Amino acid sequence: MSLDIRRLDASQPDFVTQLDALLAWESVSDAQVQATVTGILAEVKHRGDAAVVEYSNRFDHVHAISMAELELGQERLQQALQGLPEEQRQALTTAADRVRRYHEQQKQESWDYREADGTLLGQKVTPMDRVGIYVPGGKAAYPSSVLMNAIPAHVAGVQEIIMVVPTPGGELNELVLAAAAVAGVSRVFTIGGAQAVAALAYGTETVPPVDKIVGPGNIYVATAKRQVFGTVGIDMIAGPSEILVVCDGDTDPDWIAMDLFSQAEHDEDAQAILISPDADFLDRVHSSIERLLPDMQRHEIIRTSLLERAALIHVSDLDEACRVTNRIAPEHLELSVADPQALLPHIRHAGAIFMGRHTSEALGDYCAGPNHVLPTSGTARFSSPLGVYDFQKRSSLIMCSPEGASELGKTASILARGEQLEAHARSAEYRILGDD
Amino acid sequence: MSLDIRRLDASQPDFVTQLDALLAWESVSDAQVQATVTGILAEVKHRGDAAVVEYSNRFDHVHAISMAELELGQERLQQALQGLPEEQRQALTTAADRVRRYHEQQKQESWDYREADGTLLGQKVTPMDRVGIYVPGGKAAYPSSVLMNAIPAHVAGVQEIIMVVPTPGGELNELVLAAAAVAGVSRVFTIGGAQAVAALAYGTETVPPVDKIVGPGNIYVATAKRQVFGTVGIDMIAGPSEILVVCDGDTDPDWIAMDLFSQAEHDEDAQAILISPDADFLDRVHSSIERLLPDMQRHEIIRTSLLERAALIHVSDLDEACRVTNRIAPEHLELSVADPQALLPHIRHAGAIFMGRHTSEALGDYCAGPNHVLPTSGTARFSSPLGVYDFQKRSSLIMCSPEGASELGKTASILARGEQLEAHARSAEYRILGDD
Repeated sequence: MSLDIRRLDASQPDFVTQLDALLAWESVSDAQVQATVTGILAEVKHRGDAAVVEYSNRFDHVHAISMAELELGQERLQQALQGLPEEQRQALTTAADRVRRYHEQQKQESWDYREADGTLLGQKVTPMDRVGIYVPGGKAAYPSSVLMNAIPAHVAGVQEIIMVVPTPGGELNELVLAAAAVAGVSRVFTIGGAQAVAALAYGTETVPPVDKIVGPGNIYVATAKRQVFGTVGIDMIAGPSEILVVCDGDTDPDWIAMDLFSQAEHDEDAQAILISPDADFLDRVHSSIERLLPDMQRHEIIRTSLLERAALIHVSDLDEACRVTNRIAPEHLELSVADPQALLPHIRHAGAIFMGRHTSEALGDYCAGPNHVLPTSGTARFSSPLGVYDFQKRSSLIMCSPEGASELGKTASILARGEQLEAHARSAEYRILGDD
Repeated sequence: MSLDIRRLDASQPDFVTQLDALLAWESVSDAQVQATVTGILAEVKHRGDAAVVEYSNRFDHVHAISMAELELGQERLQQALQGLPEEQRQALTTAADRVRRYHEQQKQESWDYREADGTLLGQKVTPMDRVGIYVPGGKAAYPSSVLMNAIPAHVAGVQEIIMVVPTPGGELNELVLAAAAVAGVSRVFTIGGAQAVAALAYGTETVPPVDKIVGPGNIYVATAKRQVFGTVGIDMIAGPSEILVVCDGDTDPDWIAMDLFSQAEHDEDAQAILISPDADFLDRVHSSIERLLPDMQRHEIIRTSLLERAALIHVSDLDEACRVTNRIAPEHLELSVADPQALLPHIRHAGAIFMGRHTSEALGDYCAGPNHVLPTSGTARFSSPLGVYDFQKRSSLIMCSPEGASELGKTASILARGEQLEAHARSAEYRILGDD
């Protein structure tokens, strides 16, 4: 079979324009979706459980009479875990242990220091009290996503982790429930959509209100999260998944083809890009793609993704590959080269960096340890992987000695009066010590 | 004069309801403002400098012909700094030095660790390339705000800090320009409103596009920031400023009254709350307020703020004061008590904590060192003061040894197949070492 994958050459004068066009992605903000979500949020805010039950019955085709029927107990989660085939249970536990160990390195501690006059300055770090994890139902129900969202919260010290997962047609995903057991989830409600986001943000008679909501969801969930932002914290709204592979030309082209497929199979909008200074290698990977694709279970999704959004980019050398990488700021970056550590100082923007020919991106999705919730669509320029720090917050600490307050008061007074804020100035001046 | 300030008592059965009503705050989302902002963003995105110049002429009543006229050079900033009275220049420099020293403690470093089989895991921390600082013009032009927004970016290692500040009627604020010089701002454009946010987010022929936009602004600026979020990062959208003072009853009531004024003078929506287990002390502070208020320059703003949004709350003891504090999650918290360190472990949610009778909140606004950009409206439950960490981002690092990739590949394969993601599984399986 022949597959017409886009080829770009960084030496062409219009390369940057072509690259920007390739990367362009705008999520559609639909007025109808906005209005529907606004209505659902208002109903749940005012009518609580009753509204959540009604929407769940309507959208998920379940037949609940009360919220009590839409909660799963810890014993149900344990039952799911124990019911897994040994191999799956072991893999889930191994993955959770590795993710936990990595994230423990991210935990931030309080600090303070004292100045010569006894004044103490510092920062107190505390976990959030309670957070909500949204887990999609149906086909996109990924147990790995439960681990990646819940474990950082657990490591941060969050006392209550509330998970919501819709059960379209009443269907439960045992792997997802098992992952919740392994990840330390406190309570699980089988609700989804904007109504679940509303329940978590505002609280109902049964669902306690949380401080932050994380996790992926469809356009209704994403829109609801945006609307409740401010009442609660939210994580980034993710775009389609992307991979950028930089290869020197010496990795098995089948490996690279499969790495590109592993992004493309997520959905038709996913983006897979390969950059190499070796034009022949681009051809060889192209051949591997054409040969391997027909046998893939998700070959239709992969084909559409590759045709619509993929590119094979030729560059003059690996330095240029790094410059193009920084412009793309990819979610996933594979440095499939002989000496990845030599390139690392030149990489400024990437969600996660997979170094060396053996480090396939798929390892990071499940069990290497780092989080698989990563900034998409170039947002790695200014944002970070989901982490423990997303479930901790900081309070500044200031404790002035009388002498310290007196000295600082003089400076504050001058600046406050420069801003015409007299009460600020006088409040500081009260603490200036007399000469007596 | 007599002033009717709200009194609450935590022992009353409806206390929580009354407290929630007191704290309720919703920013108005006006469809007209939304539409205006959407139009301005689109114009600047497509027509660049020309649109920015037109909007600046129209909204700021300036008479610019090109963007070149709307940029100030470094020499102009230095001129502003040198032109200040010695006392002001000294105060500004002292404040900047202290803010810089505190924020240097926040800088996060890259880390990594190696596992037994040689696999390396870690996190690379990098500064953003370029950020934008919005500074309001006119009355609300605060030089302290320039320091607090620009210095953390500078400490983070951001190479280009672009400041925008509108000049309504052409009026420049010398203190603001001097603060820009002290804080390490790279370039200053005298533009504001949604058009300035658009120029920073999308870039124009003259204004380079930034990765993140921070700083306070009016409703047009806040709406524009929300709309460009995703293209660039933004900071929190701030609500009205608030102070919560917890006092044991032994601080000079005039000091406490002035501390409350120092929030109330910001604007009519600002909120000042005092909590004490000493009912007589609440009376004494009330008397101080009535006595001190008439002489204040901003007495009308303060009066409105106190009447509309202030409260004096009686509690049974300091433990209860801490519980009420956590429910409020205040932006600024003063612990005006004999032993503030004894209370600290009980405080879970607050933007900044000012400890001891001598530590007035105003010191933190200008020169104590910690940032004065703090989470408002209860968002301290899930967010933090602006800091160096807001201008750094992280990339996960994963470099597997062949043996490590082989072992991880087995786990990843099982989990990927559990999620019906075959390409993920095969990509991992390629790296499983044979028995030979």
